[in-house]
Amino acid sequence: MKVIVIGATGAVGKAVVEELGQRHEVVTVGAQGGQHQVDFANIDSVRGLFAKVGKVDAVVVAAGKLHFAPLASFTPEQFYLGLNSKLMGQVNVALVAQEYLNDGGSITLTSGIVAEQPIRNGASASMVNAAVEGFVRGAAIELPRGLRINVVSPTVLQESMGSYGPFFVGFEPIAASRAALAYARSVDGAQTGQVYRAW
Amino acid sequence: MKVIVIGATGAVGKAVVEELGQRHEVVTVGAQGGQHQVDFANIDSVRGLFAKVGKVDAVVVAAGKLHFAPLASFTPEQFYLGLNSKLMGQVNVALVAQEYLNDGGSITLTSGIVAEQPIRNGASASMVNAAVEGFVRGAAIELPRGLRINVVSPTVLQESMGSYGPFFVGFEPIAASRAALAYARSVDGAQTGQVYRAW
Repeated sequence: MKVIVIGATGAVGKAVVEELGQRHEVVTVGAQGGQHQVDFANIDSVRGLFAKVGKVDAVVVAAGKLHFAPLASFTPEQFYLGLNSKLMGQVNVALVAQEYLNDGGSITLTSGIVAEQPIRNGASASMVNAAVEGFVRGAAIELPRGLRINVVSPTVLQESMGSYGPFFVGFEPIAASRAALAYARSVDGAQTGQVYRAW
Repeated sequence: MKVIVIGATGAVGKAVVEELGQRHEVVTVGAQGGQHQVDFANIDSVRGLFAKVGKVDAVVVAAGKLHFAPLASFTPEQFYLGLNSKLMGQVNVALVAQEYLNDGGSITLTSGIVAEQPIRNGASASMVNAAVEGFVRGAAIELPRGLRINVVSPTVLQESMGSYGPFFVGFEPIAASRAALAYARSVDGAQTGQVYRAW
């Protein structure tokens, strides 16, 4: 299979590239790094990416910015950071991927444990991650040609504990390589509309 | 209790006003109708509303626009209709309400069955409704002073079958008065972070 991984230079993305690269041709995409660059919050940039890469069998997205802050001081603009990036960035990829996926191909997006298990400062993270999961449930029943769409919900990664650890006290971190298995389940599997919890 | 109902002139809102009005002082708010008007997609308009109404014991929102269309032709702009209105409109109300609620007061938002049970043309509805529920889970654990926040997820209403019926074939519609009970459970109850399913 030919697989595009968007967010290939992040902690999750690197592990996904290593996992999928064992048996698939992987095209790596980042905001700055990777073989191709994309600003996925801009659907025209996503269209340009797929026009260059052409037909694929699977698309994985492990990217997106979120703002963390106390609810009492959260502004609408700070909520829109996550809506424009982690939510609509991934939706933009799914919308364009519909046209470039070979029959039976798959889209795998990324949410996060905070969709279900809230943390302080995480109102936007809970909102955006739940939105990604809702979008996947809705999109799964409409995709034609046997196309599939799933979402992986990772918990905090061992590799990210330096930056995210203080937000996730008491959560059991997992290795990025374990999270990557959930993406492989989606890409190589046959289900659609699923939330694969990597925790 | 003094309760603001935003969206008081809609099918759900009217039933909520009738239910809560039996034992509470209700302030009705609409986009055009009601005792006060608000454009809840604009947080400054929400601030103006609360500055006029003053301290309250409960805030209910049963309002928000969503675009319905086939996934294959959905545009980012169409997704943003729901994000700006039903999602961020309700979030704006919750953000401002924090400052105007008396101790132990409550916020009750509205999602919808499509968050969990997708329908054709409903990718945005599933996304936005799930986002509202995620926001409520996240916000519930951070609200101070015993403030509570819940969300009601109604199925399609008998009163709305004229317009929404074709989207919801096979779904069992309920009377708006039954949906209104779920709002009463949130306003008069003691739980927080809950999704009350009215189906």
